[in-house]
Amino acid sequence: MVVGELPTPFLTVDLDAVDRNVARMQTYCDGHGLALRAHVKTHKLPRVAHLQLGAGAVGIACQKLGEAEVMADAGIEDILISFPLVGSDKLERAVALARRVTLSVAGDSHAAAASLSAAAAEHGVSIGYLVDCDTGFGRTGVQSPAEAAELAGVISALPGLELRGLITHPVTPDSEGWLREARELIEARDLAVKVVSGGGTPGALHAHENAEVTELRVGNYVYGDRRCLLGGTHVLADCALRVVASVVSRPTADRAILDAGTKSLTSDPALGHDDGTFGLVIEYPDAVVRSLSEEHAIVDLSACETRPELGEKVTVLPNHACGAANLHDTVALHRSGNDVELAAVAARGRVR
Amino acid sequence: MVVGELPTPFLTVDLDAVDRNVARMQTYCDGHGLALRAHVKTHKLPRVAHLQLGAGAVGIACQKLGEAEVMADAGIEDILISFPLVGSDKLERAVALARRVTLSVAGDSHAAAASLSAAAAEHGVSIGYLVDCDTGFGRTGVQSPAEAAELAGVISALPGLELRGLITHPVTPDSEGWLREARELIEARDLAVKVVSGGGTPGALHAHENAEVTELRVGNYVYGDRRCLLGGTHVLADCALRVVASVVSRPTADRAILDAGTKSLTSDPALGHDDGTFGLVIEYPDAVVRSLSEEHAIVDLSACETRPELGEKVTVLPNHACGAANLHDTVALHRSGNDVELAAVAARGRVR
Repeated sequence: MVVGELPTPFLTVDLDAVDRNVARMQTYCDGHGLALRAHVKTHKLPRVAHLQLGAGAVGIACQKLGEAEVMADAGIEDILISFPLVGSDKLERAVALARRVTLSVAGDSHAAAASLSAAAAEHGVSIGYLVDCDTGFGRTGVQSPAEAAELAGVISALPGLELRGLITHPVTPDSEGWLREARELIEARDLAVKVVSGGGTPGALHAHENAEVTELRVGNYVYGDRRCLLGGTHVLADCALRVVASVVSRPTADRAILDAGTKSLTSDPALGHDDGTFGLVIEYPDAVVRSLSEEHAIVDLSACETRPELGEKVTVLPNHACGAANLHDTVALHRSGNDVELAAVAARGRVR
Repeated sequence: MVVGELPTPFLTVDLDAVDRNVARMQTYCDGHGLALRAHVKTHKLPRVAHLQLGAGAVGIACQKLGEAEVMADAGIEDILISFPLVGSDKLERAVALARRVTLSVAGDSHAAAASLSAAAAEHGVSIGYLVDCDTGFGRTGVQSPAEAAELAGVISALPGLELRGLITHPVTPDSEGWLREARELIEARDLAVKVVSGGGTPGALHAHENAEVTELRVGNYVYGDRRCLLGGTHVLADCALRVVASVVSRPTADRAILDAGTKSLTSDPALGHDDGTFGLVIEYPDAVVRSLSEEHAIVDLSACETRPELGEKVTVLPNHACGAANLHDTVALHRSGNDVELAAVAARGRVR
């Protein structure tokens, strides 16, 4: 089957583009002595994770235990959960996972570390721990190098946990000083910082400009999306994830309606490059996806010389691949439009 | 089990609030001689659809064939697909569905009607057809009463289709003249307009101010959300859908991080009342959900007198119930917090 024969809307991923993205990021990391840890939140697909590991990734990152459990079931052995594990149900599941894989987690509080330690020690497992550092993003993370060193000291003394190092998001050259100070304060306690993990596709290819970073945690690079295109990290041909949609209405000369809305494309903006529109129509690059309803895209054709007809299939590059992939039970994997193979998005919807 | 015992994040729906919403809208429709057609895009749950039908709804509306197929499997007998069916795969499925249920569809083009007619006639089924009217929203729909009448004439002559009437979204008092003119032009062709269906929760309780409307198509009213709260259609107690989340980080005195982001709450704005924030934290109404990552909510506590602790569970009212419900495989149904029962969101992710 070819992509054009799929019913619409359908999530598609071009494995040729994926291969190029995987190779490019791995080559970058290898060239700069960085470990690559593939964030599976983007694809939620064991097959793509195995491609990333096969190319040289040291392991994967997950945001949710549920994602990690799916990946462990698929034979993946090194998993970082880059999200604080809080709640007794999470601790039980983390301990069970640590029996099956090399598990590390991120955290920014004594309390979260202590409760995970108690669970790990009780069950005789060891879990790696990275101190989550807020180096300016304003999300999770300790607020200063001194706090990082203090928490590292606490973790190093807790049974069942192994201090691994530091983690931050996003990775920028600007946080080098912050991370250096934290590392030096930790080393002054006679503790080793084995890993400094920095995350995020937008700044990924500048990660080497931060001399402290040893590991690059990236997800979105593998698919690419309108954010990546506008941000200059991907050319259009390397944007692997697209949604095939149909023109279901042509109510005016200037308007087309597609059968893909927020429930197929997400309402995520083109973060960092938001212009209030919702995707690029590949075949009609002058078309503007002005707004989305749940199942409709409202497309302004006024700038288009040629215009799509009722019933025509078009291809939409969504603003955000990670959000779009999470809306579909099934993805059509293909190679440059051919050899379509359907796969379940196995870790989709693993919200816990 | 009580709601507070659920692991987080978890989608919850208070059936007591649902019952009140169902009764209120049905009473409104009964009092004004309007048929109520429940739009299942909001809940995607056969159990809630049956509640709506049990209270007096004449049938359901679906946006996608996949939703309709799930509802037909659950024994629902009167289904309107309020979305243009375009594409040969859709026609086959529509015909199969029409063998099982009383099916009607909306459309705004000769071509879509003609292809559905051919499929229906070939298989000996009859499908109701409503002329989709763009009375000002700028999405699908014919652009004038004259176009509506012309398309009605075409449909009435097509085998396998039964002209049912007109459909528009959203319903407003302003479109009464448009719809009257369309109806009169159709009746002047000796054709009957049996139904004029108007949609949308925001203006639902003003539907009777449009004397042409005979049927109210509403979805979101059954759950309510922050849009509904800000729009004044729902009081907080009647907002049935909420997401229970945990405070997983308290990096500063003014900041809390929850384990629910765009993949649990959606990035949908509070349409019509958008203030750039992403939900109401019920227990801390002065907290502001400033932004969402895929799995994080970043909450500003600076206006809060009391503040949640690390590990505390809180309840978030999302901006948009329909978007949030579609992200969860499982919903925890409860009655005012008690008697929790888990149900599969059976029609979730039916994008086609």
